[in-house]
Amino acid sequence: MAKGNEFSGRLEWRINVPNGTSKTLVPESGIIQKSCRRLQDVVVGITLGIWSFLHKAWEIGVNEPKKFFHCLKVGMALSLVSLFYYMRPLYDGYGTNAMWAVMTVVVVFEYTVGATLCKCVNRAIATFLAGSLGIGVHWVANQCGEKFEPIVLDFSVFLLAAAATFFRFIPSVKARFDYGLLIFILTFSLVSVSGYRVDKLFEMAHQRLSTIAIGVSICIITSMLLCPVWAGQELYSLINRNLEKLADSLDGCVAEYFTDDDTKEDSSKNLQGYKCVLNSKATEESMANFARWEPAHGRFNFRHPWKQYLKIGSSMRSCAYYIETLNGCISSEIQAPESLKKHFNDVCMRLSSHSSNVLKELGNTMKSMTKSSKTESSVREMNFTVQELQSALKSLPYQLALFTSPALEASNNGKDEAPTEPSKVPLLEILPVTTVASLLIEIAARIEGIVEEVDELANQAEFKPASKKGSKEPAK
Amino acid sequence: MAKGNEFSGRLEWRINVPNGTSKTLVPESGIIQKSCRRLQDVVVGITLGIWSFLHKAWEIGVNEPKKFFHCLKVGMALSLVSLFYYMRPLYDGYGTNAMWAVMTVVVVFEYTVGATLCKCVNRAIATFLAGSLGIGVHWVANQCGEKFEPIVLDFSVFLLAAAATFFRFIPSVKARFDYGLLIFILTFSLVSVSGYRVDKLFEMAHQRLSTIAIGVSICIITSMLLCPVWAGQELYSLINRNLEKLADSLDGCVAEYFTDDDTKEDSSKNLQGYKCVLNSKATEESMANFARWEPAHGRFNFRHPWKQYLKIGSSMRSCAYYIETLNGCISSEIQAPESLKKHFNDVCMRLSSHSSNVLKELGNTMKSMTKSSKTESSVREMNFTVQELQSALKSLPYQLALFTSPALEASNNGKDEAPTEPSKVPLLEILPVTTVASLLIEIAARIEGIVEEVDELANQAEFKPASKKGSKEPAK
Repeated sequence: MAKGNEFSGRLEWRINVPNGTSKTLVPESGIIQKSCRRLQDVVVGITLGIWSFLHKAWEIGVNEPKKFFHCLKVGMALSLVSLFYYMRPLYDGYGTNAMWAVMTVVVVFEYTVGATLCKCVNRAIATFLAGSLGIGVHWVANQCGEKFEPIVLDFSVFLLAAAATFFRFIPSVKARFDYGLLIFILTFSLVSVSGYRVDKLFEMAHQRLSTIAIGVSICIITSMLLCPVWAGQELYSLINRNLEKLADSLDGCVAEYFTDDDTKEDSSKNLQGYKCVLNSKATEESMANFARWEPAHGRFNFRHPWKQYLKIGSSMRSCAYYIETLNGCISSEIQAPESLKKHFNDVCMRLSSHSSNVLKELGNTMKSMTKSSKTESSVREMNFTVQELQSALKSLPYQLALFTSPALEASNNGKDEAPTEPSKVPLLEILPVTTVASLLIEIAARIEGIVEEVDELANQAEFKPASKKGSKEPAK
Repeated sequence: MAKGNEFSGRLEWRINVPNGTSKTLVPESGIIQKSCRRLQDVVVGITLGIWSFLHKAWEIGVNEPKKFFHCLKVGMALSLVSLFYYMRPLYDGYGTNAMWAVMTVVVVFEYTVGATLCKCVNRAIATFLAGSLGIGVHWVANQCGEKFEPIVLDFSVFLLAAAATFFRFIPSVKARFDYGLLIFILTFSLVSVSGYRVDKLFEMAHQRLSTIAIGVSICIITSMLLCPVWAGQELYSLINRNLEKLADSLDGCVAEYFTDDDTKEDSSKNLQGYKCVLNSKATEESMANFARWEPAHGRFNFRHPWKQYLKIGSSMRSCAYYIETLNGCISSEIQAPESLKKHFNDVCMRLSSHSSNVLKELGNTMKSMTKSSKTESSVREMNFTVQELQSALKSLPYQLALFTSPALEASNNGKDEAPTEPSKVPLLEILPVTTVASLLIEIAARIEGIVEEVDELANQAEFKPASKKGSKEPAK
């Protein structure tokens, strides 16, 4: 305890090293030990950081083997193109220009086939256009005499770079030709600059184009033939997954609200799925954009209406906003009395299950790519339950009188006559339930919006009509 | 009419050319005229397309002059770096490596200073690391004998490219070092490939690094000194703008619901502002990411808590979801009776105006970067109005009896006694209003969440306390 008093002025030291013995507080050896401990902490911190990083990396590898294969593909494409380079005949032919093949592979190889194709086409066309324009401008500059040549070239670089950069700001251009415009600026600058020195412009252009062609073909072959990741397929799976998540969240939310605490465990895990729907806009847009570049693959032909998927996604989001609000109402502090909840329990649960059934049916339509005859009947069921819920709401004021005066309820039980005084029920108590109910009705309306968009997709993509096997009803 | 009969079989022709005279339907000259017309249509279509495109471009230039200046800056940086190239001494020193300076400028120059700095640092470090590693691997490969050299080199390219590509999938790495990893793969492949041929590796590395340094410094100087666009400033303005839009939308929505048709015109233009808040997540994240690279500028120091802006943005989005729902309820088909609306009109309008006042006050806090003493009182007012609305809701069942039987209302007017029979009011009719009211209460709760996040920002960024001038109350 004497030691404790001695070092009372350095209490913060002790707090910093809560596991240390009191020996560590002796000033002489303290400094060394402290720095040792710091070093140890740093080493432990770094080790833990690397460990958690590797763990995260391992998880990505295990959960998304496609990404792992993509890495191997990039490595393979690069070592392939390097092999080209190691072979002397090719090197002799193309000289240092061969590095453009390596560069093309590194820059152009993307995760999805669509993105790779988009970049390849952009790169090839932009290089060709900018090369031709560069040579043209170079010829014009040559005509202007030696004095004006650099000025003309420099001014043309300024003008074209500024114009191309400006076009990159226009959203519709940016979505499709952003990379092309970048390569256009790059190639034009390089050609007009190097043209001033190197006189073999045409030869250089030819070499550049053929090395880029080598790089591009290696990229396209590797990305299309070895475990291809199609942007279209990814978009399709994303929309399907989101439909499922939306259905699960809706079910989960309503179940959480109306059922007892014991059964909550199961539903809560699916509760947050709708958040993925809220945040998937950017992914959907880029996927749809890349999917347009892809050739026919799997069940999708070349002109598959990818834009319609964006509309489905957008209508799903507008439904997800309501589920977010519903979720907020459910976790609100003001909770309705149990008796009132019971009144709505049955019809709300039925409405949510019918609504999520419609979503699941849409998921089936999407998955099987056949028009499901069951969708119509599930929508009908959903709408019927909406009407039921509405009549349950209509009948509520009368019920209120019963609910809120248990004594009266007991005495009046079975009588049709109402109590003689109007009930001064705090509406605030019934409000949470009625809000949940009206949100459910709105959600049903939004789900009809999704149904319309999926129907439109089915028409545009010419989904097969439902077969006998697929539907319970006999096919017409 | 006879002519009409004659061509009745080609009615669709007439529909296609509604402005044409009947002469155009004569088959002989029809084909030529038809193709003329097609050509004309195509030309008109192209002209219109180009016109609308230029119009869009012009609009961007006029509305966002910063973007226009950025284009000029890119052009200037490129012509500057080309000028370097035209000067023979530099060319003699660096040879064809000088093109790396051009390439660096094209690829690295971004719209915001933060993005440019991020790319510059990434490029410089990645080039240095990959270069050193490449030379190291090249030395190891050299020791393995001429036969194994290409194999070792090729395998190392495969391994490192695959590993670096994998790291690009990890979100935290991707956000900050995506470009660096790309350049790492590129440089390592180029060094190990060209090292096999060119023996002057060190000289090349030196040249590469110095040309990149030229490009990088031109980029940094141009982007930071000429009308700099700071990512931090952009993020700050975006959050401020969104706060305003949220306030306007809230006001607009509630006003649209409760006021007459005559005054709707003014409010509806601001109604859709909250949609920008819903969709700004990706922009906010990338801006916050780039802002971290920026040095102190304007009112922001180097370690400004940019991450806190993301939290503010996220709490604003959770509020915007409710406004979206509110907007849906307002445009819903079922509308409450006017008498009921009037009951809530006053208190709802006050709540919405107090709520939007809080938002505007937060906007002022952000704009002036001083803790506003008014915020607290506006929050208090808002919460007080929430309580008023809650008591308005509590008193509703009693009111219902009055509203729904106008005859009774007339006879009972002024009396405290309630009607003798409980009212069988369709709750469905009052539901829209109560839902709007409960959404408004939830929105107020979400706004308190925004207040907390802004307070946290004020603490982290050490906003000045409110001055005498800034607040109506005397400073303590």
